[in-house]
Amino acid sequence: MKGINPTFKRSDGSFTPQGVSDWLDAIQNGGISGVSRAISLLENKKPEARKMAMKVLERCMPYTGKSIRIAISGIPGAGKSTFIEAIGNEILQKNYRIAVLAIDPSSQRTGGSILGDKTRMESLAKHPNVYIRPSPAGQSLGGVAANTREAMYICEAAGYDLILIETVGVGQSEVAVHSMADLMVLLTIPGAGDELQGIKRGIMEMADCIVVNKAETPNETKAEQAARELRNATHVFPPHPYGMELKIMLASATTKQGIPEFIEHCLELVNTAKNTGMFEQRRKDQSEYWLNEALHQIMIQSLMENKQNTSHWEDLKMKVKRGETNPFSAADSFWKQFLSSQKNK
Amino acid sequence: MKGINPTFKRSDGSFTPQGVSDWLDAIQNGGISGVSRAISLLENKKPEARKMAMKVLERCMPYTGKSIRIAISGIPGAGKSTFIEAIGNEILQKNYRIAVLAIDPSSQRTGGSILGDKTRMESLAKHPNVYIRPSPAGQSLGGVAANTREAMYICEAAGYDLILIETVGVGQSEVAVHSMADLMVLLTIPGAGDELQGIKRGIMEMADCIVVNKAETPNETKAEQAARELRNATHVFPPHPYGMELKIMLASATTKQGIPEFIEHCLELVNTAKNTGMFEQRRKDQSEYWLNEALHQIMIQSLMENKQNTSHWEDLKMKVKRGETNPFSAADSFWKQFLSSQKNK
Repeated sequence: MKGINPTFKRSDGSFTPQGVSDWLDAIQNGGISGVSRAISLLENKKPEARKMAMKVLERCMPYTGKSIRIAISGIPGAGKSTFIEAIGNEILQKNYRIAVLAIDPSSQRTGGSILGDKTRMESLAKHPNVYIRPSPAGQSLGGVAANTREAMYICEAAGYDLILIETVGVGQSEVAVHSMADLMVLLTIPGAGDELQGIKRGIMEMADCIVVNKAETPNETKAEQAARELRNATHVFPPHPYGMELKIMLASATTKQGIPEFIEHCLELVNTAKNTGMFEQRRKDQSEYWLNEALHQIMIQSLMENKQNTSHWEDLKMKVKRGETNPFSAADSFWKQFLSSQKNK
Repeated sequence: MKGINPTFKRSDGSFTPQGVSDWLDAIQNGGISGVSRAISLLENKKPEARKMAMKVLERCMPYTGKSIRIAISGIPGAGKSTFIEAIGNEILQKNYRIAVLAIDPSSQRTGGSILGDKTRMESLAKHPNVYIRPSPAGQSLGGVAANTREAMYICEAAGYDLILIETVGVGQSEVAVHSMADLMVLLTIPGAGDELQGIKRGIMEMADCIVVNKAETPNETKAEQAARELRNATHVFPPHPYGMELKIMLASATTKQGIPEFIEHCLELVNTAKNTGMFEQRRKDQSEYWLNEALHQIMIQSLMENKQNTSHWEDLKMKVKRGETNPFSAADSFWKQFLSSQKNK
């Protein structure tokens, strides 16, 4: 089973996980290589790898849930990597172990990832208490996000205290990331009132905290203005579902201005949420979201596993778009055909 | 097949549709009774009714797509019914035929509907060119919305020119309604900056037009202020995906102030969207959305059709929420069990 039971080096010599217990050992005692190989196992689409991955995840569960999960979202150019590096370095002083996971479905195009280039977070990447994982490649957004959620469990089982989830703020990835983070931070930059132009509708209202980054000289006035406009915009927002107060903060990842304050605010939000029970509630809601989402993804994958079904589905999609058939009859006939194919299997 | 082939009166005597052609005849020539019975057929969950409903919908398709579909959303108390009555009466003067459909999943609790009480739209309800359909009862939001989308096709095949979709603005129903309307209107009322308190996050950014209703004396100043705050809030919004300009309008459903202007603005938006091709594009996107949504609903229904599966699922949900199992393994095992039960059927 090449690629499923890889041999890799660790302090006590080379190691080849054979069963679930070996994998848990690799995750908990195998350092970054162990965690990394376990996440590769999760991303491996081969049925036998997937089977083992499910067992490994189950074994990890008792060790999960103890980290703080913060998502950092923002348009390309908002300085997400530099910002993550700045807060990461600050938090390392608290002796936290940090895992940075990326959700970037656009990276499918190149098969790489925005985080693949670790030089962009050079000082963080070198630190022994930091693990940086690029976005899984070659998948739909749903798949990428699900893999990130799974990777999060592995990182927690490995003892990371803080999970930072980086996501590009131009699409639906925020909905997925919102469903796995305790806090969702939206990163923006000063600009003449159009600083959010690149952010998709609805995203702003999902944020638990908005940071105007790059607020250093000579951008102070512009940054203040951006913050004021954001306050105007958000003050008519409906109340936060988990009772948090949405704060608009100024920061500069390069000068470190506002970085300690940002971290303090995040920890305060988490503490308040824990005291009110909203922290726990949000995680329960998220687990339920992912149960439904996982079932949906597994079903779709199962339905589309052969080419005949896929092309039938594409054909129905075209017909529905042209108004030649209605979505309900089309879906109904597709599903009935699948069920009867299962009986004859 | 009681309840599927009902006998009902029409101008040429009583009529009992037997096959698909009879149903199309009932829809196109049977007046409000014909349309009404056809929609009841769609809402009937018996397999044989559903089978016929799918055939009827398919037969209707060539006659669909020609109406304008406008969704009216807003918190309870925003005056949705009165507003719909006001715009309905105005539009009737243009010789339009109007269908009003409701999406109100909360009505499941009573088994009735906010629109069930037609006296709330008394003058509209009495008009021969108006058809008012309450929200289907006893279903999930997804089911309610899907039924409304299906009912829309029936109304279009029956020749209605304008479909108004009323929805309560407190939940996820807006996402569903946004996926079937050409225009989504958000109705709000004057109040000290908190006029949107009841609206769920993300809804405001989906609106194509926001109307501050009840702007009549003595509310003018408050209404102006609400509109100003909404303009402040929405001017940092990202650009509209279909290129429409979001307008904040004042209106009073009781004095009819602003009602003609609102209708003109809606028609203008529709015309612009048609000219740019965005109208057609939006509808295609919506059809694709509903194809996926319909497949999802059919699959879930199929999976949950027996009590054993349902209780197994509920059990998994509890375990996932308590962190005893992970969503991915739980969904995986649930699906595998379903597939093997299909083989042995």
